[in-house]
Amino acid sequence: MVKRYLDLTSLEDAKKIIREEFELKPRTKTVPVTSSLGRVTAGPIFSRYSIPMTHLSAMDGIAVKTADTRGASEQRPVKITDSVRINTGNIVPPGYDAVIMIEDVREEKDGYVIRKAAAKWQNVRPAGEDIGEYEMILPSLHRIRPADIGALVAYGLEEVETIEVRAGIIPTGSELTGCGEPLKAGCAIESNSHMAAAMLREAGADCKRYGIVRDDSENIMDAIETGIRENDFLLVSAGSSAGTKDFTAQVISKLGEVLVHGISIKPAKPAIIGKIGDKPVIGLPGYPLASWTIMRELVWPLLGYYGLHPPEAVTLNAEIAQALPSPSGTEEFVLLSAADIDGRYVAVPQSRGAGVQMSAVRANAYMKISSRSEGIETGERSEITLLADKHLIDSAFLITGSHDPCLDYVADMAAVKGTNVYSCHVGSMGGILALKRHMCHAAPTHLLSPDGDYNTQYLRKYLPGEDLVLICVADRQQGIASKDGIRFEELEEHTYVNRQRGSGTRVLLDYMLGQKGMDSSKISGYEREMNTHLDVALAIKNGDAEAGMCTLSAANIHGLKFVPVATEKYELAMYAKTLEDERTKIVCDAIRSQAFKDILKGIGGYITEYTGVLRYV
Amino acid sequence: MVKRYLDLTSLEDAKKIIREEFELKPRTKTVPVTSSLGRVTAGPIFSRYSIPMTHLSAMDGIAVKTADTRGASEQRPVKITDSVRINTGNIVPPGYDAVIMIEDVREEKDGYVIRKAAAKWQNVRPAGEDIGEYEMILPSLHRIRPADIGALVAYGLEEVETIEVRAGIIPTGSELTGCGEPLKAGCAIESNSHMAAAMLREAGADCKRYGIVRDDSENIMDAIETGIRENDFLLVSAGSSAGTKDFTAQVISKLGEVLVHGISIKPAKPAIIGKIGDKPVIGLPGYPLASWTIMRELVWPLLGYYGLHPPEAVTLNAEIAQALPSPSGTEEFVLLSAADIDGRYVAVPQSRGAGVQMSAVRANAYMKISSRSEGIETGERSEITLLADKHLIDSAFLITGSHDPCLDYVADMAAVKGTNVYSCHVGSMGGILALKRHMCHAAPTHLLSPDGDYNTQYLRKYLPGEDLVLICVADRQQGIASKDGIRFEELEEHTYVNRQRGSGTRVLLDYMLGQKGMDSSKISGYEREMNTHLDVALAIKNGDAEAGMCTLSAANIHGLKFVPVATEKYELAMYAKTLEDERTKIVCDAIRSQAFKDILKGIGGYITEYTGVLRYV
Repeated sequence: MVKRYLDLTSLEDAKKIIREEFELKPRTKTVPVTSSLGRVTAGPIFSRYSIPMTHLSAMDGIAVKTADTRGASEQRPVKITDSVRINTGNIVPPGYDAVIMIEDVREEKDGYVIRKAAAKWQNVRPAGEDIGEYEMILPSLHRIRPADIGALVAYGLEEVETIEVRAGIIPTGSELTGCGEPLKAGCAIESNSHMAAAMLREAGADCKRYGIVRDDSENIMDAIETGIRENDFLLVSAGSSAGTKDFTAQVISKLGEVLVHGISIKPAKPAIIGKIGDKPVIGLPGYPLASWTIMRELVWPLLGYYGLHPPEAVTLNAEIAQALPSPSGTEEFVLLSAADIDGRYVAVPQSRGAGVQMSAVRANAYMKISSRSEGIETGERSEITLLADKHLIDSAFLITGSHDPCLDYVADMAAVKGTNVYSCHVGSMGGILALKRHMCHAAPTHLLSPDGDYNTQYLRKYLPGEDLVLICVADRQQGIASKDGIRFEELEEHTYVNRQRGSGTRVLLDYMLGQKGMDSSKISGYEREMNTHLDVALAIKNGDAEAGMCTLSAANIHGLKFVPVATEKYELAMYAKTLEDERTKIVCDAIRSQAFKDILKGIGGYITEYTGVLRYV
Repeated sequence: MVKRYLDLTSLEDAKKIIREEFELKPRTKTVPVTSSLGRVTAGPIFSRYSIPMTHLSAMDGIAVKTADTRGASEQRPVKITDSVRINTGNIVPPGYDAVIMIEDVREEKDGYVIRKAAAKWQNVRPAGEDIGEYEMILPSLHRIRPADIGALVAYGLEEVETIEVRAGIIPTGSELTGCGEPLKAGCAIESNSHMAAAMLREAGADCKRYGIVRDDSENIMDAIETGIRENDFLLVSAGSSAGTKDFTAQVISKLGEVLVHGISIKPAKPAIIGKIGDKPVIGLPGYPLASWTIMRELVWPLLGYYGLHPPEAVTLNAEIAQALPSPSGTEEFVLLSAADIDGRYVAVPQSRGAGVQMSAVRANAYMKISSRSEGIETGERSEITLLADKHLIDSAFLITGSHDPCLDYVADMAAVKGTNVYSCHVGSMGGILALKRHMCHAAPTHLLSPDGDYNTQYLRKYLPGEDLVLICVADRQQGIASKDGIRFEELEEHTYVNRQRGSGTRVLLDYMLGQKGMDSSKISGYEREMNTHLDVALAIKNGDAEAGMCTLSAANIHGLKFVPVATEKYELAMYAKTLEDERTKIVCDAIRSQAFKDILKGIGGYITEYTGVLRYV
């Protein structure tokens, strides 16, 4: 295990090794032009016809011989007796070399009178104006676009030869459950191969996904032999590390050669590049985000070497909202939620845990921390790569602070109106500090002051002199959640699960302990900190603790008893000027909507009397 | 006809009318998550499980009860007798509340000795760390990405409800031939509906293409009634103008209402927006580029109003290489070939003819000339919208000047190496002037000086004091092409087709007429100008002229007799520093390659002795 990390390969070297060790010649496949969208030409494509094939009239009028029109003028009109009446797009008959617009002639029974000589080829679309027979339409390795399809069809092509790359993917792991099968504790539903398959298709490769293979070197060997035989290259998901149950490297070295084991990027260190016959085998790490990183940073480039066009990386420059220390010597990829705040881009780092798949869903961008860097300072500018269309970043609304499940519904309603809400759960104080640094649009907060008022005093203290506004999401019941209806006064007799420092719930707990003269050190589990109401409720449901303080909604979701302790104001804090922003209007309209109030009533534990009300601080 | 243009609608108003006149509610379709890539969620999606379901170990080690570890230190080691050996990812059994790494324990037959107390929940991945049961994974109208598929599968979803928009497209026109049928003169292969279908699919709509309908109002009425019944909206291709055979508007007004007839954009004025029942019908113009413009500027936005995600417009700022006068009052879209020249983007306008489909193939960008503007000056900066990935613009190599079919093969060879060559046919002098203005990378030229040398004198005259270099493509035979082997001396007795002023061939003709004391005014057809060798040969093949001067290759392609007149140097002129550019190296390597010389020999009429040789001017 240790040994592996002594000879880690850099990502750049890993890609170089792939380019140099393999020929990567794609096979070709002839497809109908009409279904060739997004495919890549295998060779140059030439026109079957000259278009137009013959001279066509560009006007409604008469085809004439210019010789007959010589000398015609207002003073000396000329009567044309040899002409053909034609419309736009009609063939100009052989022998005729110009078209006179119908508006410019006077018809008589034995011909047309004109008052102006015609120039040769006037109002004629010459043969071959668009393209000549045998002319090249498209070169090799061109990705076919809709307008290319139109041209290919118009120029007489029915079929087109395109390149084809066949990728196989084998998921491995004895703890894995198939998609659709019921999940048992300690198991995981195999999802990496489905994500990888989608990425391969997105880049234009044909993908064959094989069934899940148990952790057994013989099964894995059989699967890899089949996969290599049936495809141009092979992906093996999981088992790429060096643990007792990681067989991928060992099997590859039996069937061929391990070129790289371990790449110095985070996440995704335990990746493998192998060679069996003349074909590449890539060992993908088991953690979802690590697997994704290798697909994006190594497998997509590999497809590019074949001539395919993987999705292009669009970048922009953003301020990173949180410091990101990162060991030098390792290239780290960090997922981000980015948005435009006051005309500059801000990006909030997501959880860096390689197992937290939701951070990939929440991310609309990512950044690379160079292996030569020690990390990123708060507010430092960095290039970020988009994981969504740019207009979705421009329409993003960043919420950072205290979490409540009801914000998900606000996000859903805003999404329908074209605003994407990204929530970052750092507790009320964390939100207020993010707001102070202009690193979010709104900060959800429920901080109780000694005078019994919520939020205003904290805002005045931490953002003095600023024009601030609070919009009420709801008045919310906080209470003690438990399986047996434990009351606040009984907390010292039970194990407890707490919320993190700076969270409104934690402030409320400490405030009430003080009021009731109770001693936090007597509460076992007081030091166990959770980041959300739902985590607290889940911990109690799972029996890790007997009691905890959370919202009624969280208690209900996990079917716990709930003893109310207090009703608090859960509000979004913003700079007053933010109200003028279109995104803010959409979010506030969602909060004020009857539909949202109905949802709150349905969940329970919310008083909606003040929902949507603004308070200026 | 005139009347129509009196009440043209602006593009903005046309879109507004669509938004206000129609409800545009998409239907929904439930699909397997694993085949949902690129589809758009119809509603919010919630997790079926908490992931992880229970506490998992984040390390290989032993699960312990922290109470048993209290007080352990280097001085006072503690033996743990109640523990469970577990690996990364294993369940932490109920009752145990921490994991100690295997490296930190010493195994003895009756237990493990530790030298440090364990903190509660150390090295434990808590239940719900990734996502909680009932938490929202994705909001409504989210376009599903590969990483989303991974998460949806991992969180227990098998199917997902997505939006669906059904579009029908009906091609009309009696002159149209179906894809694959042989093309007759005066007919055209119907291609617009195939391009439109590809654009609809690209934007995520389901598309049904109907058969070609002849120009007959009853047939068209039947087709439109069926199309409207079977789809959410309908596209009718061609027949949207106001000519005698344009029935679309008339039929729509019979079945419903014509909301807009005529949009003030170029190309694409004769577009229609109609309403039948509560469904939109869009009448597309017949000219391919006009049809494309309406699809891109009106139909893609329409799909966006349903909630689909049409491809996003990526823009950048470029210098426009040619002046583009444009009538104010009309919004014009101009196709461009853009490239990076000396660190700034330059865009060369393509032919503005709405019938020239090749300009859509050659274009990698387009620009909009506002209806308030009178046009664009040469070199003026403008925002351009990309029609290809940005890296393809960055790897583009612009060739402007004299045309030769063999450049297509250079382009093909360069494409395989990742450089996209765009050729603009303006003749030798046009190329030299473009080079002078730094509006191209290389200018193909074959200009004969009175002293009998090619190209050098012109370059010294028009680009004095510049470090220039010529790379020889080939020594090329020019001659008189005809059906009966006409000789140069016989030109005055035959009809002629000429090349445009400033083309090397034209210079050579005039030079030789002078030498032989012949009079150009005696040559009938001298004033008929073609822009390429192939156009000259095609004109002779079609019988528009008896003779013309072109290359042997062009004469051969159209099966004409060829009487040699001169051998000339066909070279690419460039600034010397351009040679250092990676794209230039690739183009020059292609020219020098044996494969290219073999192609030239195969075509005939080229002497390759100096092919690839550099001359510094």
